[in-house]
Amino acid sequence: MLSRQELEANNERFWTSFTDSQLASTPARKLLVLTCMDARMDPLRMLGLRAGDAHIVRNAGGRVSDDAIRSLVISQQLLGTRHVVVMHHTKCGLLNVTNDELRQRLRPILGHGVGGMDFLPLGADVMESVRKDVNSLRQHPLLAPDTVVQGFVYDVATGRIAAVD
Amino acid sequence: MLSRQELEANNERFWTSFTDSQLASTPARKLLVLTCMDARMDPLRMLGLRAGDAHIVRNAGGRVSDDAIRSLVISQQLLGTRHVVVMHHTKCGLLNVTNDELRQRLRPILGHGVGGMDFLPLGADVMESVRKDVNSLRQHPLLAPDTVVQGFVYDVATGRIAAVD
Repeated sequence: MLSRQELEANNERFWTSFTDSQLASTPARKLLVLTCMDARMDPLRMLGLRAGDAHIVRNAGGRVSDDAIRSLVISQQLLGTRHVVVMHHTKCGLLNVTNDELRQRLRPILGHGVGGMDFLPLGADVMESVRKDVNSLRQHPLLAPDTVVQGFVYDVATGRIAAVD
Repeated sequence: MLSRQELEANNERFWTSFTDSQLASTPARKLLVLTCMDARMDPLRMLGLRAGDAHIVRNAGGRVSDDAIRSLVISQQLLGTRHVVVMHHTKCGLLNVTNDELRQRLRPILGHGVGGMDFLPLGADVMESVRKDVNSLRQHPLLAPDTVVQGFVYDVATGRIAAVD
């Protein structure tokens, strides 16, 4: 495990060459990226973005959860973003698994707390899960009407993104 | 706005020098970082991490929302993480604002859909909001018992992290 001292030492190498003190809180590209928490993904780098450019919202799967909508509303209404990129990825742990399978697997470990949990699994087709989330965002009553929503799949084996129409 | 063509061109510069095709889905440092979507933050870089090291969960504020718990359960039970870093930051849009103020401000724009929304505001003290979220995680029934939870505040003006005890 990374100790507090290691994290602080790592951070010291960062802040001693820090040059981003003047960045605005409003994202320069008016962009919000919604993507998976997956360790293999570095959303800024894969999209050629830098600090200051975009809000990055990440959860298991990169799903349009209620909490992602909360973040989106704050991003759009308080900080002016109007472009959303939804990005799921290949080899995601939420592909090809159902809520029932996850609950059965986790109940012996976590107890009944997982009984009613919706894990927001992706289904069998990652293009289709992106399409579904893009459509659910586009139809969402809390989305600013002048928003552009685009969908992509990230391939963790190649680093390439593929647009989803 | 970044067009699909621009995003793909940016990504081409990334994937043509991609060397991470062999990364495992299980985070190498067994770490999950929960932090804010804020555009000024680059969690990997500020903590000296690289792709493959950690799950990164981000939402407005970096709060322990229901959806963050969903992500945490998947991270811990399916992918073996046992260390959580909760990081809020200075100058956050969710500091010094209340749910009532946010609802009043957004109702004329978004209608009654925001009436019951909990925006998970941070209160007036970012150290205190980290402390609260760290404690709420440590006491959460779905957290794996052998998990280490640490709290930090990131200063967007200096790039420095400060541990919260």
